[in-house]
Amino acid sequence: MAEAEIGLIGLGVMGSNLALNIAEKGNTIAVFNRTPQRTQEFFHEAGDLQDRVIACETIEQFVAAIKPPRPIIIMIKAGEAVDQQMELLKPYLQAHDIMIDAGNANFRDTMRRFDALKDSGLTFIGMGVSGGEEGARKGPSIMVGGTEDSWKRVEKVLTSIAATYNGDPCVAWLGENGAGHFVKTIHNGIEYADMQMIAEIYGILRDGLKMDAKEIGEVFGRWNKGRLNSFLIEITETVLNANDPLTGGPIVDVILDRAGQKGTGKWSVIEAQNMGIPATGIEAAVAARSLSSMKEERVAAEGILGLPGAPLEVADREAFIADLESALLAAKIGAYAQGFAVMAAASKEFGWNLPMPTIAKIWRAGCIIRSQFLDAITKAFTDKPDAANLIVTPAFAELVKETDGALRRVVSAAVTSGLPVPALASALGYFDSYRRGRGTANMIQAQRDFFGAHGYDRVDGLDSHHGPWGSGLVSERS
Amino acid sequence: MAEAEIGLIGLGVMGSNLALNIAEKGNTIAVFNRTPQRTQEFFHEAGDLQDRVIACETIEQFVAAIKPPRPIIIMIKAGEAVDQQMELLKPYLQAHDIMIDAGNANFRDTMRRFDALKDSGLTFIGMGVSGGEEGARKGPSIMVGGTEDSWKRVEKVLTSIAATYNGDPCVAWLGENGAGHFVKTIHNGIEYADMQMIAEIYGILRDGLKMDAKEIGEVFGRWNKGRLNSFLIEITETVLNANDPLTGGPIVDVILDRAGQKGTGKWSVIEAQNMGIPATGIEAAVAARSLSSMKEERVAAEGILGLPGAPLEVADREAFIADLESALLAAKIGAYAQGFAVMAAASKEFGWNLPMPTIAKIWRAGCIIRSQFLDAITKAFTDKPDAANLIVTPAFAELVKETDGALRRVVSAAVTSGLPVPALASALGYFDSYRRGRGTANMIQAQRDFFGAHGYDRVDGLDSHHGPWGSGLVSERS
Repeated sequence: MAEAEIGLIGLGVMGSNLALNIAEKGNTIAVFNRTPQRTQEFFHEAGDLQDRVIACETIEQFVAAIKPPRPIIIMIKAGEAVDQQMELLKPYLQAHDIMIDAGNANFRDTMRRFDALKDSGLTFIGMGVSGGEEGARKGPSIMVGGTEDSWKRVEKVLTSIAATYNGDPCVAWLGENGAGHFVKTIHNGIEYADMQMIAEIYGILRDGLKMDAKEIGEVFGRWNKGRLNSFLIEITETVLNANDPLTGGPIVDVILDRAGQKGTGKWSVIEAQNMGIPATGIEAAVAARSLSSMKEERVAAEGILGLPGAPLEVADREAFIADLESALLAAKIGAYAQGFAVMAAASKEFGWNLPMPTIAKIWRAGCIIRSQFLDAITKAFTDKPDAANLIVTPAFAELVKETDGALRRVVSAAVTSGLPVPALASALGYFDSYRRGRGTANMIQAQRDFFGAHGYDRVDGLDSHHGPWGSGLVSERS
Repeated sequence: MAEAEIGLIGLGVMGSNLALNIAEKGNTIAVFNRTPQRTQEFFHEAGDLQDRVIACETIEQFVAAIKPPRPIIIMIKAGEAVDQQMELLKPYLQAHDIMIDAGNANFRDTMRRFDALKDSGLTFIGMGVSGGEEGARKGPSIMVGGTEDSWKRVEKVLTSIAATYNGDPCVAWLGENGAGHFVKTIHNGIEYADMQMIAEIYGILRDGLKMDAKEIGEVFGRWNKGRLNSFLIEITETVLNANDPLTGGPIVDVILDRAGQKGTGKWSVIEAQNMGIPATGIEAAVAARSLSSMKEERVAAEGILGLPGAPLEVADREAFIADLESALLAAKIGAYAQGFAVMAAASKEFGWNLPMPTIAKIWRAGCIIRSQFLDAITKAFTDKPDAANLIVTPAFAELVKETDGALRRVVSAAVTSGLPVPALASALGYFDSYRRGRGTANMIQAQRDFFGAHGYDRVDGLDSHHGPWGSGLVSERS
């Protein structure tokens, strides 16, 4: 009876694609959907793969069809529905069975669910899956959080369906409880920053150099053959070259400049804030999406304030475009360095022991931010697993030194011309603050001591921690 | 017996100063402290004011000394201690008595405490008090949240002790439950941004123009007589002119560049994120403080990466310093505009009906960010209470147009020279994104539709919400 390696509940697009991927890789899978009609449709769609699909109409059948200990993927809308599904499923399960949430959960929910099952004999995996619908079907990047035992039970199946980069599967066990969903959240936060930086460069080409969509597409196409080679640069070229069937013109020109967001960018920022780790690239990207959504306000503000700055003047157009390429690379380094620093802090905070080289490794293919760049990060962290920051690893230190001049020229030109570059500028602010041994926070500490008697440390280590303004006469301060 | 207008628990520096202020303004106050010895000390310190101070050794005496309905200020360490104190106090209170938390509470705790008292007959005020120890003693800015009835009970006392600006008291009832503590949190968030921007300008003068502390102090002293006139600019001059008693040199030069933070900056950012309102100036300031605390990492990074950028070259030094003044003013506008936008969103989110002109009004004196600038904001919001944003009010639109050119020149010069200006740059990013009717989020929406089938709206309103890359063949996307 029990012949399925794994079960899956929820046959929406993501769930169906994941199930077909699992079957195609030689695994027998039991599937169940709330509405049995969809289960039948799915079985029909499975075609040649039907002999490895067990379509179940009841939870009893479904559970009975899976080899114990049973791994069961739940692929439904994130939130309360997951809790409800887990409650429905629990009475049918036995000790060591594993419920796997493969949705875009907030890792704090994952921690809660994991803890809630502690004394039940059951266990839980929070699994981040990146790559969109296409990735689910053909090979996603998979970030697993849970007990090591539960990972061992699913390792073979997950390895068979994951994307590969030079033969290495893009799946890994990253740590206990919420580790997988946390890493997926930061993946998405980095994705926000990456996309915003591309949008800013696009804006400089469009509004600064006055290039049309096709010309800009040509530039991104060229860059995709160089060091920026990545999925996001590739699709930027693709969308710039696509025409709108209704108007015949470039599709990007008819799309409204109002970006949506579903929460993972915000979660990344909030968790970074909670730990006191700068994530200004993600913050800039989230803010840019929020500002984009205030379309009417922006149109009104342009009427009142006008567009700012002088027209962009570029002496050597080709040299400037080469600068844009290096600037984008430099800014990317800033955003990724921040993302990895946030993960390093979370690893300590939550006791996960997150493996940085492995995270970079499983992001090289399958996921939205997949790129050659992540292979360089893999190497940097493999060589220096305990590096304080990506930008002080030898390879990336060199890269920062090589490219940050271009980033300075681009930000300076954009700022002068009134072209918004908050995410690109955030990387410079990060580099320039992080690499300056003697900063300016002495002024902030002096002020805080002046008005709040907060005290300060001294550069010479001497034992005098309040300024002469106080002299013990707190109430005499103005 | 019951002759006190008000009671106060917690005779630390802030509580003592507030109590003395209350007595000095002609109000009789009952005081209580966990350790009776401190109560006796305080009574002794009260000197001439003793006939308006009722020093109580027991909670029974304390409560009996206050005229019902009894307003009782609790001025102790924020957090659990407040809940404990409230529990201890409750059995002695009667219907309509008012517990007032005057500490730096997170407004979410204030909401919880307010709700918890709902059916008890008692009520609660969350009261933000700004101005430090000095302000508490001589006249703070006071932000009140609670029921209107409870406000009416305390209005007279609070009005008597608040700072005044041209005769107007800096105290107001801002709305129900958490309104006062929320506004205080954003006040502090703005304070973070303000201080960071000053520190960045200080850095340009010190590391760019190579000026010493006294020379920089002279510049801030001059600015304090102009449009930047404010408490923070004033104390910047003062600390720059102060000498270290141990070394005889400028005190700022011996203070370690490692800034502390106590949470209100972080809370501001998290709440802004929760509501999707950009607060990038506060984000930059919080990040800068976090980076400052990584002193060892920064020193190591300077060794590896070196200091970036070319030396700052300035053709006309005086003109550049004038630019710095305008740039600081422009950047301030950005940070305050964001802070007020966050409060406007919170007002809707929590049903507070926050009065923007009143908030600006009560910040003009008493608090840390007090300034002439806030008088201009008061006027702008009084004239246009429903303005979508501070920067589109007529007065501030003019000011932005007048000063943002200087901000561009300063940011461009700093970025070129590798001087970190994340907070100054955040204001430009904000202005330039907010005033641009057609932004670049169309690119982000195109990408999101490409890889995630998220869909988009069109500029022409036509009903076609997916790009031609899809054509229904979701699984064919690369």
